Amino acid sequence: MSSGENDDEDGYRGLLENIRHLLMERRPADPLRYLQTVLDERIEQRDVRRLGSSGENLAPPGGLVKHWDAERSTFLGVDVGGSLSKITFFESNDDPDSAVAAFVKRSERYGSTGFRDPALSFEWRNGRFHFLTFETRRMEGAIEMMRANGLLKTGETLLATGGGAHKFSETIRSRLGLCVVKGDELHCLLWGINFLVQHTRDECYYFANPQRPSMLETAPFDMTQGSAFPYLLVNIGSGVSILKVDSNDSFQRVSGTMMGGGTFWGLCRLLTKCKTFEEAVELASSGDTTKLNMLVRDIYGGAYEAFGLSADTVASAFGLLGVSEEARNSVTEADIARGLLDMIAQNIAQLAYLCARKYHLTRLLFVGNFLRKNPLSMGSISFSIDYWSRGVARALFLRHEGYFGSTGAFFIADDDPVVVPRGALSEDHRTDAQDGRVGRSTNAMPTSE
Amino acid sequence: MSSGENDDEDGYRGLLENIRHLLMERRPADPLRYLQTVLDERIEQRDVRRLGSSGENLAPPGGLVKHWDAERSTFLGVDVGGSLSKITFFESNDDPDSAVAAFVKRSERYGSTGFRDPALSFEWRNGRFHFLTFETRRMEGAIEMMRANGLLKTGETLLATGGGAHKFSETIRSRLGLCVVKGDELHCLLWGINFLVQHTRDECYYFANPQRPSMLETAPFDMTQGSAFPYLLVNIGSGVSILKVDSNDSFQRVSGTMMGGGTFWGLCRLLTKCKTFEEAVELASSGDTTKLNMLVRDIYGGAYEAFGLSADTVASAFGLLGVSEEARNSVTEADIARGLLDMIAQNIAQLAYLCARKYHLTRLLFVGNFLRKNPLSMGSISFSIDYWSRGVARALFLRHEGYFGSTGAFFIADDDPVVVPRGALSEDHRTDAQDGRVGRSTNAMPTSE
Repeated sequence: MSSGENDDEDGYRGLLENIRHLLMERRPADPLRYLQTVLDERIEQRDVRRLGSSGENLAPPGGLVKHWDAERSTFLGVDVGGSLSKITFFESNDDPDSAVAAFVKRSERYGSTGFRDPALSFEWRNGRFHFLTFETRRMEGAIEMMRANGLLKTGETLLATGGGAHKFSETIRSRLGLCVVKGDELHCLLWGINFLVQHTRDECYYFANPQRPSMLETAPFDMTQGSAFPYLLVNIGSGVSILKVDSNDSFQRVSGTMMGGGTFWGLCRLLTKCKTFEEAVELASSGDTTKLNMLVRDIYGGAYEAFGLSADTVASAFGLLGVSEEARNSVTEADIARGLLDMIAQNIAQLAYLCARKYHLTRLLFVGNFLRKNPLSMGSISFSIDYWSRGVARALFLRHEGYFGSTGAFFIADDDPVVVPRGALSEDHRTDAQDGRVGRSTNAMPTSE
Repeated sequence: MSSGENDDEDGYRGLLENIRHLLMERRPADPLRYLQTVLDERIEQRDVRRLGSSGENLAPPGGLVKHWDAERSTFLGVDVGGSLSKITFFESNDDPDSAVAAFVKRSERYGSTGFRDPALSFEWRNGRFHFLTFETRRMEGAIEMMRANGLLKTGETLLATGGGAHKFSETIRSRLGLCVVKGDELHCLLWGINFLVQHTRDECYYFANPQRPSMLETAPFDMTQGSAFPYLLVNIGSGVSILKVDSNDSFQRVSGTMMGGGTFWGLCRLLTKCKTFEEAVELASSGDTTKLNMLVRDIYGGAYEAFGLSADTVASAFGLLGVSEEARNSVTEADIARGLLDMIAQNIAQLAYLCARKYHLTRLLFVGNFLRKNPLSMGSISFSIDYWSRGVARALFLRHEGYFGSTGAFFIADDDPVVVPRGALSEDHRTDAQDGRVGRSTNAMPTSE
């Protein structure tokens, strides 16, 4: 026996002792599954170190709330998006004479496009959160209104994020005399989500009956119990980023796809007369996909038993249009919009499910502009996640959809590195796209063939 | 300590002894990775048994070739497809006076649409394989030609598969006096692939430089060395089926997508003036996707460093068309066809990669009508698999693409259950689609939250 073989044996013995210790201490009910998870984790950690982590440092250690609570004196966060700007405002009970608080609560409408959503407001510690929206093209007017009403004191710090934060920071600085601190869009998004899911019991919800999804049948999912981490975050903007969020301090982009909201809208502009994304989503609601999708029954005359595929399973999206002139003649713009919407949402859900499997995650959070006023796609996603995971995994959505950036802006550290999207204000749906065919995970394929 | 705890400890000790035995016997170089694979396999087997296998029995035990060799007296397999029919013919040296062999070898053209591809022909044991194609609409003429030339003797068995096998079997029976035995399309496909990859050294090939894929730079991949199994099979027809093939005897449908060749062709019929699938693929070759895809640089003005996304990464397929009137005015039908082709091929590759990860597979075989005369998509798929797997996994293609069914028909057992697609002959691209959003794997998500 060579000394190399002796080294191997020592290694095996150390590993066995390690496993024995884990089993006897943790006493898992399903030891095979438990060891599988441990090994996956160890191997991934090992590979991360080897490959160099692509994970991001999300916040200074010490916890999200402590960081914000202890160091901030201002409670206004702004997310300047391509079409809409969002404000998260925290009203402290310690400052009952606040001019901002009085102004914010005086009405639910401000100027021509601003509004406050009282249903989203909630009590927290010594105060209350409020959430406001206005159209970014009214930014000058909003600044003027704030100035005229003396809402913010000279020298105070305004925490801002979003593609437009850079563009308007000089105006805000000169007209309001505020100090503008800008934070990276993605970091603020994650801070906002992490704060909300850990500090409100009903932030997350899911479709109670995903096989027949309805906005009338949703149920809250409480992530404040136990650890919120890890979870899979699927951010659907023009494109899609899929992140594994491990803690308040760390995340990793594990996948993504170029097929997102921008794909739906781009193809709708070619195939329908719709002038806005919202109009296209609305049009889709009256569409019928059986007029363009090829079903299993169209091919096999019924179910395909060998694969356990039911007769009404979609075999090929838009497949009927390639083979049937009758289908081409009878299809409507609404059918096409619905076909695109369902195809894209279901594809995103399938990719997300496979990523979740790769990392052994069962909590999948879906966020992003694409879901705004789009219950159809939330339903499609819920259906698909339930389908692929056989009911084990859940598609979760968030009540404060759209306000994560403005809420997360509260946690901007002065030295947070900023990525400023260029031209993000030129037209809608251009802000939060990341990637397409890139975004490697840190976990390589097994190297043995 | 309760007796339940004692039972647990006994279970743990048994498991540890099992692991110790495996390590000492196999002496793996990377014990963590090795144990991970063993656990995955054990857990999957356990779950398969628990859930009821959806795996298919592919062939009687005993091996593919033995089964065919020992029991068959005829060497002609036919795959009657929606538009094309394929014939695999084995010329035995033991029968030098065969009328079929003389007829087949007399020419490379037969009738108005038939042709033989001599480049695909190969020697095997005591004879030679030949591969022929003719248009299915010429079936009557082909039957007449065979009858007139006395090519097949009355009472011989014709092995047939494909959507049209059922439709033409009565004609063949009555005019040629042949006994027609029909085999399930999918089973024949798998038999054909398994036979070819295990008995010819150069059946599989890959793009030697996947980052700049070119049909001029391919290399053979020899699957006759060691076991060919398991591998992932991605069958791209109108829809896509993703199978895990474990042996000559077993496979499992693990995933699939409704976004396949039918989706490309259906959307092309809406967006271009092309009259055939082939025309649309040809048109795509002159298209430029930068005129319709939104790139990372369009959003961030350069690379997005935080995610390691380069400036020319696609952020959103067709995304530019939603936000730029200029882009909408300048885009051509060729650009659109190319955008659809690339988007669909890359999406299939991404799903296939994630499925391969789930099952720890590094060999991915891509087959199906969609790849016929479509080197662009083979290139896209090669690029994507290389990209996502960081060069570890390979996209493999097969030289006898299109002839798997007719070759696999050799292995039809008389009692093979047949699934006959209905209406598969009505128009092209309607035959080999399976599924869309279904096709559950047998391996459930971890049940612990």
